Amino acid sequence: MAEPLGIGIVGLGRIGWHHAEQLRGGIAGARLVAAAVDPDHRQRLLASGEAPCPLVEDVAALLALPEVDAVVIASPSSLHEAHIAEAAAAGKPIFAEKPIADSVAGARRAAAAVRAAGIPFQIGFQRRFDPAYRRARDLIEAGAIGEVEMFRGITCDVIPPVDFLRTSGGLFWDLAIHDFDAARFLTGDEIVAVHAVGAVVVEPRLTEFDDIDYGIVTLRFRDGALGVCQASWRAPYGYDIRAEVHGSRGKVVAEVDEKFPARLYDERGLVSARHDRFTERFADAYRAELQAFVDAVRAGRAPSPGLDDALRAVEISDAATRSRREGRWVEPGA
Amino acid sequence: MAEPLGIGIVGLGRIGWHHAEQLRGGIAGARLVAAAVDPDHRQRLLASGEAPCPLVEDVAALLALPEVDAVVIASPSSLHEAHIAEAAAAGKPIFAEKPIADSVAGARRAAAAVRAAGIPFQIGFQRRFDPAYRRARDLIEAGAIGEVEMFRGITCDVIPPVDFLRTSGGLFWDLAIHDFDAARFLTGDEIVAVHAVGAVVVEPRLTEFDDIDYGIVTLRFRDGALGVCQASWRAPYGYDIRAEVHGSRGKVVAEVDEKFPARLYDERGLVSARHDRFTERFADAYRAELQAFVDAVRAGRAPSPGLDDALRAVEISDAATRSRREGRWVEPGA
Amino acid sequence: MAEPLGIGIVGLGRIGWHHAEQLRGGIAGARLVAAAVDPDHRQRLLASGEAPCPLVEDVAALLALPEVDAVVIASPSSLHEAHIAEAAAAGKPIFAEKPIADSVAGARRAAAAVRAAGIPFQIGFQRRFDPAYRRARDLIEAGAIGEVEMFRGITCDVIPPVDFLRTSGGLFWDLAIHDFDAARFLTGDEIVAVHAVGAVVVEPRLTEFDDIDYGIVTLRFRDGALGVCQASWRAPYGYDIRAEVHGSRGKVVAEVDEKFPARLYDERGLVSARHDRFTERFADAYRAELQAFVDAVRAGRAPSPGLDDALRAVEISDAATRSRREGRWVEPGA
Amino acid sequence: MAEPLGIGIVGLGRIGWHHAEQLRGGIAGARLVAAAVDPDHRQRLLASGEAPCPLVEDVAALLALPEVDAVVIASPSSLHEAHIAEAAAAGKPIFAEKPIADSVAGARRAAAAVRAAGIPFQIGFQRRFDPAYRRARDLIEAGAIGEVEMFRGITCDVIPPVDFLRTSGGLFWDLAIHDFDAARFLTGDEIVAVHAVGAVVVEPRLTEFDDIDYGIVTLRFRDGALGVCQASWRAPYGYDIRAEVHGSRGKVVAEVDEKFPARLYDERGLVSARHDRFTERFADAYRAELQAFVDAVRAGRAPSPGLDDALRAVEISDAATRSRREGRWVEPGA
Repeated sequence: MAEPLGIGIVGLGRIGWHHAEQLRGGIAGARLVAAAVDPDHRQRLLASGEAPCPLVEDVAALLALPEVDAVVIASPSSLHEAHIAEAAAAGKPIFAEKPIADSVAGARRAAAAVRAAGIPFQIGFQRRFDPAYRRARDLIEAGAIGEVEMFRGITCDVIPPVDFLRTSGGLFWDLAIHDFDAARFLTGDEIVAVHAVGAVVVEPRLTEFDDIDYGIVTLRFRDGALGVCQASWRAPYGYDIRAEVHGSRGKVVAEVDEKFPARLYDERGLVSARHDRFTERFADAYRAELQAFVDAVRAGRAPSPGLDDALRAVEISDAATRSRREGRWVEPGA
Repeated sequence: MAEPLGIGIVGLGRIGWHHAEQLRGGIAGARLVAAAVDPDHRQRLLASGEAPCPLVEDVAALLALPEVDAVVIASPSSLHEAHIAEAAAAGKPIFAEKPIADSVAGARRAAAAVRAAGIPFQIGFQRRFDPAYRRARDLIEAGAIGEVEMFRGITCDVIPPVDFLRTSGGLFWDLAIHDFDAARFLTGDEIVAVHAVGAVVVEPRLTEFDDIDYGIVTLRFRDGALGVCQASWRAPYGYDIRAEVHGSRGKVVAEVDEKFPARLYDERGLVSARHDRFTERFADAYRAELQAFVDAVRAGRAPSPGLDDALRAVEISDAATRSRREGRWVEPGA
Repeated sequence: MAEPLGIGIVGLGRIGWHHAEQLRGGIAGARLVAAAVDPDHRQRLLASGEAPCPLVEDVAALLALPEVDAVVIASPSSLHEAHIAEAAAAGKPIFAEKPIADSVAGARRAAAAVRAAGIPFQIGFQRRFDPAYRRARDLIEAGAIGEVEMFRGITCDVIPPVDFLRTSGGLFWDLAIHDFDAARFLTGDEIVAVHAVGAVVVEPRLTEFDDIDYGIVTLRFRDGALGVCQASWRAPYGYDIRAEVHGSRGKVVAEVDEKFPARLYDERGLVSARHDRFTERFADAYRAELQAFVDAVRAGRAPSPGLDDALRAVEISDAATRSRREGRWVEPGA
Repeated sequence: MAEPLGIGIVGLGRIGWHHAEQLRGGIAGARLVAAAVDPDHRQRLLASGEAPCPLVEDVAALLALPEVDAVVIASPSSLHEAHIAEAAAAGKPIFAEKPIADSVAGARRAAAAVRAAGIPFQIGFQRRFDPAYRRARDLIEAGAIGEVEMFRGITCDVIPPVDFLRTSGGLFWDLAIHDFDAARFLTGDEIVAVHAVGAVVVEPRLTEFDDIDYGIVTLRFRDGALGVCQASWRAPYGYDIRAEVHGSRGKVVAEVDEKFPARLYDERGLVSARHDRFTERFADAYRAELQAFVDAVRAGRAPSPGLDDALRAVEISDAATRSRREGRWVEPGA
């Protein structure tokens, strides 16, 4: 067996930290080498003694380490484009969190940089590795529901701090983007037009930067199917995601209502504990996507989902945002 | 106890027949007197010996029977307005199938006629009597999910013959109208704007009269909530309806996946038989709505859902149809 | 249509009251005439103004009323035999709560009295009218699981007052008897030997009269199948009953986990309200069994379940009780 | 990190092969060194080119390999005792499939040999590593159901070839043993008496060696709780296991009805694919138990479940077998 793949991670925020934990033992053939975090964060981690790996101050330092064979980019969304460009210039295989950039133009630039460098690239749409979504995809590909005719996706999550949302790109870029990608993954079809509407009911300050906390996006697919995505920063009963694909011969539903396989009945009746966080709901998927990336890079195969998926999801998120603001149908990428 | 209420029924088609069956024993305090059916149908029923009650040739003859204390109108949608007007003129309490008329103007005329006559009126939105929808409504009214923030309804049914659809008013008037009413019933809120899209994938001949077999309608509610209704003439796995209401503190889902309370496991695994028809899925609700009508009339109470609900559902159906054709937001009733 | 059947009810305890409520409107073709209750109870009911019907002092007075066409016997178990004998002597059709008597000998005497009188008789095993149990029975009769090979039934209920239990005949006579009958009903087979064990963990005073609050009974069926019944006076999460029949080609499970067809998700996750009482869990079944009795009597048909079912259940309950005390296999009826 | 633990495996039958597959990459810190298989089997594997690792002819040869740090014993049940003794004599940590031996006396000898050698030992009760059983155990330990009062376990599997069964020790030794262990694991209590009954309905040839294909075992626990285990060589709807623990304040049910997290609805209604084999149902558990063994050995901790659990399960299986044959209560280990 070849040497383990040395991984450098950029950013140790919520999802970066989760990836780092995985890379410390859970991913076969991989080895966490170091992480680049900004100086303040580095200070705090060193003081706490909880750093999961050696820390360096920036991406350049990380890329300069000879043991770093590939990078996981989990920095804030607004820095994805720059960090992808740097890693591409250094010729390192990239696993990047979504979105690939914070604008369509930036996404195209990032994609061009990766293509020019000819390096393996994977985007962090972890639902593609979730057992429920994979099973749904397998059934659809096998023809179990006939021709795809309608899609529905929904994602409800707890609202992050307003300051995070201020630079997140908005509900569609940050949250619904997962459903846009799931729609493409599950149907095997392409979204060609979107129409969106939004509301602010959870956090009034979102109006300061024209964002929303509830959104509904109607989709038109290339082959004639329709779809709808619902997203909200509201999850009082725990993180909640579902997808439903209707076809000419049946329907597939990907949903995981029960957090645990054993059921508790007590004085309240049957009680099913809530999913607390996406990292918990998708624990298997997060591990599987990193494993898939590592396996592909080591085997010289192209990882997936790749650049096209990363780019398209950003185009759809952008189109949904514009549609909501302009009250009209918008064609992604046009 | 007072005498049973003598009921005359107008029309013995699919739903009229179902009501007639209920009225022959299943509804306490009611008695099926006679039915008005057109001469051809009457001929066939008399020949078959299967008529559930004495038959008369038209609504006038039915209303002239002294034993007829109230009428159930289950004629084709295009005749509802005229039949309601006749019954109102005769001063008979009316239970009418939806839609109250086949145009907004007609609906207003029918409502005016009923109001002028001062008679009890109930519209056949049977979901309001379904145990799942009622339970959902009860929970929401009791504050179990806090403030209502998002609605989702879906109805999938087997496509009727094209000739029926030609005069049905279209997917939104005929099918989604139930979800529009359910949205109002469950949320306790009012729909103030709709945006609709449609597709033809099941029956190409629908394009001949600008109808669709898949439709998605985005809703805006008066108090700020959003919603979406999905409807289709496609039910390969059986009649399928669901409603979901998200609130600030929880979510309620009305769905009945399993047709039978006992589960069968065989060589296929766990198998849950499909709901075949709406008359089967809503058997309890159809009985309960007639019982509620009979009880209200006998007790001198106003039945519910009434004229306003009947009228509003038609306005929303009309708005959705126009929105789809014009590609823009439409305000129902405006 | 013939005149309604005039019903006299014996006893207005928990289940008698429930039947009386049903008979006041819920049962087509039936009319509640009067109830026989002991003088104290009569006094209290008259004082409270809540009596559901005219009251008489004893069964003789009830049977003497000319409007009483049939009786529902819901007196304490220890009086069933005497009340059945009186009603039989008066030639009145009988619906009797289980058990038919409080001893096997008494049950045989009661059965002989009914047979001698040649009157219709139905025993109150309401599970035979529950939608879940009926569906399970239908599937099994239709061959959906092949040959029956194993049965499992379980009943958990809240413990009644010790003073009630003192004269109830014990856990098997009072509670497990329903599962013994369900075993016979669902399998279509006969129980030929039982082996029982019990424990006292809920109410220590049960040891004073050699009763138990947890019991497990192993069953042997005539055609070779095995079975097990579990029963307990412990229902912290609500009244709980289930039945499971394994066959050569599949399995049927009758269970109703969710009290309501709509699901609530709140800060606890998915929450399914508990069934509080058997009258609530079996509301439909209690209505259906009375309706079936009324329909059979009015149509001159023999009602079901009848004398043989009533007698056999008592024989099995007795055998289980003896088996537990003697620690050996016992053949019911032997 | 220390060197990977070199594992030698004894036997490459159904479960041995499954373990070997896991050890080739799925278990961190472990390395599959070689397998001992009998000469015929070795010949076939070499011919097919499918051997998962180097093959040796017997346990002695395997134990002689310097790279073998520990052994996994997956030989036929009748050889477990001898193979455990050999490995113990060689001082190698042992992971053994259940049962630890094919007689209570043999089990005691095997246990004595292991204890004398002072080596780590783990028995293959993989349900203890299944997410459903673990969650149930966690809830019970945390007091979620109060005091344990009743247990129920059921295992239904496809019947193996008669020739395999001839030496398997019978239904209780081979199949119900998992439920006996699960009963101890979940309740945290000890089984002190059993009463068993059996039937032959699937395979008449079982009577040739006094075995059964359906069995029901009633359990008495030390602290007063009751229990029942059902087992059968009949699984027409797929491999089926469930456990249910009733307590003074609630109930926990460990069952996994749906094989896949995504649901398919087609012309049959809702269809849930069956679990085909125990290796599939317990894929995660089989991996987890090996991982736990490897981790414990490398860390110098005692693995679990260990010798006492292995021995007690055999004593209970033996008691159940004797109880069935003798028709009386038997105390395990007495």
